[in-house]
Amino acid sequence: MIGLSSYAGVMESPMNSAQEQQPFSPLTNSWSTQQESNENQKPTSVGGFVLVHAGAGYHSESKAKEYKHVCKRACQRAVDRLKAGALAVEAVAAALIELEDSPFTNAGMGSNLNLSGEIECDASIMDGKSLHYGAVGSISGIKNPVVVANRLLSEAQKGKLSAGRIPPCFLVGRGAHDWAVSQGIPPCPSEKMATKFSLSAYKRNKRKMELAEKIDTGHKQTKKRRQSSENENGSGCLDTVGAVVVDLEGNVAAAVSSGGLAMKHPGRVGQAAHYGCGCWAENACNMNPYSTAVSTSGSPFLASEDRVLGGVIVLRCCRCVEAQPSQNIQGILVEFLWSHTTESMCVGYMSAQDSKAKTHISRLPPGTIPGQSLAIEGGVCRLMSVVE
Amino acid sequence: MIGLSSYAGVMESPMNSAQEQQPFSPLTNSWSTQQESNENQKPTSVGGFVLVHAGAGYHSESKAKEYKHVCKRACQRAVDRLKAGALAVEAVAAALIELEDSPFTNAGMGSNLNLSGEIECDASIMDGKSLHYGAVGSISGIKNPVVVANRLLSEAQKGKLSAGRIPPCFLVGRGAHDWAVSQGIPPCPSEKMATKFSLSAYKRNKRKMELAEKIDTGHKQTKKRRQSSENENGSGCLDTVGAVVVDLEGNVAAAVSSGGLAMKHPGRVGQAAHYGCGCWAENACNMNPYSTAVSTSGSPFLASEDRVLGGVIVLRCCRCVEAQPSQNIQGILVEFLWSHTTESMCVGYMSAQDSKAKTHISRLPPGTIPGQSLAIEGGVCRLMSVVE
Repeated sequence: MIGLSSYAGVMESPMNSAQEQQPFSPLTNSWSTQQESNENQKPTSVGGFVLVHAGAGYHSESKAKEYKHVCKRACQRAVDRLKAGALAVEAVAAALIELEDSPFTNAGMGSNLNLSGEIECDASIMDGKSLHYGAVGSISGIKNPVVVANRLLSEAQKGKLSAGRIPPCFLVGRGAHDWAVSQGIPPCPSEKMATKFSLSAYKRNKRKMELAEKIDTGHKQTKKRRQSSENENGSGCLDTVGAVVVDLEGNVAAAVSSGGLAMKHPGRVGQAAHYGCGCWAENACNMNPYSTAVSTSGSPFLASEDRVLGGVIVLRCCRCVEAQPSQNIQGILVEFLWSHTTESMCVGYMSAQDSKAKTHISRLPPGTIPGQSLAIEGGVCRLMSVVE
Repeated sequence: MIGLSSYAGVMESPMNSAQEQQPFSPLTNSWSTQQESNENQKPTSVGGFVLVHAGAGYHSESKAKEYKHVCKRACQRAVDRLKAGALAVEAVAAALIELEDSPFTNAGMGSNLNLSGEIECDASIMDGKSLHYGAVGSISGIKNPVVVANRLLSEAQKGKLSAGRIPPCFLVGRGAHDWAVSQGIPPCPSEKMATKFSLSAYKRNKRKMELAEKIDTGHKQTKKRRQSSENENGSGCLDTVGAVVVDLEGNVAAAVSSGGLAMKHPGRVGQAAHYGCGCWAENACNMNPYSTAVSTSGSPFLASEDRVLGGVIVLRCCRCVEAQPSQNIQGILVEFLWSHTTESMCVGYMSAQDSKAKTHISRLPPGTIPGQSLAIEGGVCRLMSVVE
């Protein structure tokens, strides 16, 4: 997993202003103590905070508006759920559905087509409260792969199946599709998930491939492959969408969804479906006062790649006395950031107190090379809940 | 991944005697220094060390002989490859093929049947030298899943595909099967992979399931699932096979293969195919003088399980001056261990200098409860190679 330590000192832009301009307050009252003293007091307020991204890759100025719009809608969806009293994991799934439904993102509708011209998606979701995890890989004919991942997670939380069988948390291919349908999730014909854009990109890529193979044959180099990275698919091929959420009880959740690489081999599963790779969420506990949620984009398997293209969104929070104006108000301090080595990354964030989401297309500084430098931006937000 | 830290102080049996009775010699000359001084000197001897296991679960006394036999054959296969000058990754694949071919292990031939009565296998392999990784999940109709994982690894090492496409390292389901066949790996009819034993276990499990569901319906408890672990499948259902190898150049490799849980949902992928979960191998480098290879059995996803049943084999080695009798002889000190929380685990190990493998069925001490206590055993072995 791309962890917080990965950012160390490559290039750091100053923390962006966000909900609150104040710097990070040091932890003065540990989570566990707070938990104990409020054992029978449940926060009654509803709310929380969400951070989403619509892909780390290249976002042209012409499409910037579309990407910002989908991030805005995704944040709104999550906040709507949080305001209705939903837990973080439900809110993060709601944000992902919106991101998948956009024809502009490489997830759900409008996903990259594989070598056979089909759409096969990966998605995963993790609940920081239970540490349960659900994932699907190489799934076809389902509009929202994250819904299947989320259903796997919630079904696993119900305990064992008949005869003591352990419920699945990761299903792939045909089996994943059939399980989804058996759970009442409607199938969606593949042709309805392709867009004009994804179809024309497929045709373009196919021609490029055929041409490249013809040239290779001409040069009698079919056996000896190029080691260099020409990256003809463009950095956009690594695109993934993701979201991280914290609710007012301090529960965190993370999710990720991807159509995978363009022209990938059928059956190929990418990092979005991998446990510990695509997303991670872990509530604070006695040993650790911080709750953390992470969603990544890009591949950790590219040991041989000289340019690692990827992005990450991170949320970290803790209960905090300094953020607490009075005894019966609980304060949660939320730090959040996004970081990428790709040319750009489109993000959105919103707390339940906001009237609308803030969106931003983060870009590497002019003159820097994708994969060789890193952009980091983020902010701090304070959440309040009334304890009765 | 189950790491070395997991063993700390739960229950530790004294190190078993193995190849050499001497205790572990402290590192007196770091790997990197050794590497530098011998830059142009390649060891000419061939050899190495292999450790395998045929499953962590329950091994009846009546079948103990069979399990030991397959471990012995698997070690011999790896050593034969090492003696022929193969690198660790080739030797570890050879050991796995033997383990998969046994009808007694839950991998390849004789794997557990899924809910539909089909065999779907997971396997992965990692090369500590290149850090490349290959895996297949939920693959049917291929006799040796590890061969497909190994082919994915070796194909990825050749660099990019036409038009700059990144080669796959993890394929699942139908796509994995078709890719294997396109690579010249012969398909194998599913019915040839089932055994009398696996078929009768399937029928027994099916009856048990139907009975359990009938009782549940009778008690109107179909919606409310049991939270307790009755484990009617027996702990054998977590069985996986694995191997770890070091060659005389100090390269390590690890591999794992599994038929998965009995009566699993079609499309279910277990930890054996997961990056960072089923196996790990990492050569020594400037930062770390130790090469390490690990292969695990059991599931890391069972956050809700009160009894975690699993096993692990580990190999760690370093170049060592103390093990070096003269200037032109390089010594590699190999520490190895196996550990399990299941009732038993069958292991075998062998160095290329040995005439035959040692095998052992490790059992929890009498009176201890599987999942609540841990057995650890291991040993030390010294490898020698002539530097010219």
